[in-house]
Amino acid sequence: MQQKKVTIHAPATVANLVCGFDVLGMCIDAPFDVMEVELINTPEVIIKNTDSYHLPTAPHLNAAGAPLLELMLSFNKPIGFKITSNKNIKPGSGLGSSAASAAGAVVAANYLLGNPFSKNDLVRFAMAGEKVATGIKHADNVAPCIYGGVTVIRSIFPLDVINIDAPPLYVTVVHPQIEIKTADARQILRKEVLLKDAIKQWGNIAGLVAGFMKKDVNLIANSLEDVIIEPIRSILIPRFDDIKQACKNAGALGGGIAGSGPSIFMLSETKAIADTVAQVMQHTYTEIGLPHFTYVSQINNEGVKIIQS
Amino acid sequence: MQQKKVTIHAPATVANLVCGFDVLGMCIDAPFDVMEVELINTPEVIIKNTDSYHLPTAPHLNAAGAPLLELMLSFNKPIGFKITSNKNIKPGSGLGSSAASAAGAVVAANYLLGNPFSKNDLVRFAMAGEKVATGIKHADNVAPCIYGGVTVIRSIFPLDVINIDAPPLYVTVVHPQIEIKTADARQILRKEVLLKDAIKQWGNIAGLVAGFMKKDVNLIANSLEDVIIEPIRSILIPRFDDIKQACKNAGALGGGIAGSGPSIFMLSETKAIADTVAQVMQHTYTEIGLPHFTYVSQINNEGVKIIQS
Repeated sequence: MQQKKVTIHAPATVANLVCGFDVLGMCIDAPFDVMEVELINTPEVIIKNTDSYHLPTAPHLNAAGAPLLELMLSFNKPIGFKITSNKNIKPGSGLGSSAASAAGAVVAANYLLGNPFSKNDLVRFAMAGEKVATGIKHADNVAPCIYGGVTVIRSIFPLDVINIDAPPLYVTVVHPQIEIKTADARQILRKEVLLKDAIKQWGNIAGLVAGFMKKDVNLIANSLEDVIIEPIRSILIPRFDDIKQACKNAGALGGGIAGSGPSIFMLSETKAIADTVAQVMQHTYTEIGLPHFTYVSQINNEGVKIIQS
Repeated sequence: MQQKKVTIHAPATVANLVCGFDVLGMCIDAPFDVMEVELINTPEVIIKNTDSYHLPTAPHLNAAGAPLLELMLSFNKPIGFKITSNKNIKPGSGLGSSAASAAGAVVAANYLLGNPFSKNDLVRFAMAGEKVATGIKHADNVAPCIYGGVTVIRSIFPLDVINIDAPPLYVTVVHPQIEIKTADARQILRKEVLLKDAIKQWGNIAGLVAGFMKKDVNLIANSLEDVIIEPIRSILIPRFDDIKQACKNAGALGGGIAGSGPSIFMLSETKAIADTVAQVMQHTYTEIGLPHFTYVSQINNEGVKIIQS
């Protein structure tokens, strides 16, 4: 008998990775969403939220629902899905909340159907969720969420995702409880950049990709520099420069804004350093009375995980 | 007895590699310069040219001499060198002619001194030759000439060279006999670029680096795209677009302007394709009566080579 229901973990992701705006993304272990997906016989998507985020339940307006509608169009039999979603990744955190919903839904659905679709197909479907949530089809969260590890989105049309197996670095994330809309974070960027800055940026992204592939932590540390986006976007994040410097002083390799913020991420070589980095972050935001969450985990080379079936 | 004299091959290099302006460089087997370097007891550099290029022989004005003066300053004993240079890489070809002189001289000198300097030191010395020849200290030719293979120059100050072992692809080069001054080729570039173009470019450089490291020829082919520099500089090279398209039609993976031109390079998977690509290039330039040279060789993973000692 065909399996009808599955429970999955859909992890958070960090887009941009400092020097790879709109191109790089990384999957991390925590936080993650838990989602139950059930195959049903009627050609519809039913969404039930068990969290308190009041996300829309109409499938074409939902980050998990829209990708499933795309997937259903590409499948040659009439099928439907019922989703029960319990989100831990807060929408608007910069940690790929909508991507986790989108990627989790399509990976689960594909599993229930006997995996007829490739990972690239799933990324394509999942981008429909990003379109619903952010207004733009982008893959720098959904691709690492589906592939795991670090991904390069060389191109969206046609889709070209390059998967890089990253070293098992630790990731500390702080999510200050302020809201930055992705659309706003995009709008404050300049449409033109200096050629000399662009050259510096592509030197760094080339260095970061080589650093991950060679598992060279010094090269990774040196390449985590952004002269184009961070100087503008960091203005929206309280105490950004102080936190970044203090985390590096505490031993972090480097880091920056997660996606369009407001979360900040830092990479470290050991759990002990990553824990200290979390304390540094907590200290700074406690000092100014800004509520926040921190997460310490590792780069996740697996992506969305089937945990119960 | 200490060895006093050595003969070396200093190979041509292709800077930029299409999507890596000022950051990527690649060493190739042909053409190459032959240089004889002799250790002498007087603290001076004596230069003798046996070719017909009439390059300056005053050491501080010579691309091989200036780096040796730098090297001598860093060595703790009074030494000198006599160079006899026979250049095959024509100055102004875009194939790293000055870099071959600079890199060849310092690698040979280091060998004669018992290798007291690191490759990074040698790149630093050799950049003095680029300063003499082009007015700017840049490393995207001297670094691949010294390291071999493909190099990423993540940063010049401080110098950060990343060496990538590239797959043994074939390289076809055509050098049309027109002159493009590096300074002119630089001046026609815009100082600002569109952010969306820069993003495309850093997606491609990330893809190209990953492609070389994964030895994935499709990824290399797809990443060899330049939306920023090539559309401007290619105007200076007769029939550039036609040649590029015809070479791809003949099976080349891709390619573009070598350095600041006028040479054009193309990568291919086999010698047979690389030879056909050379014929395509010859055909186009013969058709319009433009004298030219072609070279078919391979990516050179060794760099400057001691051939007789």
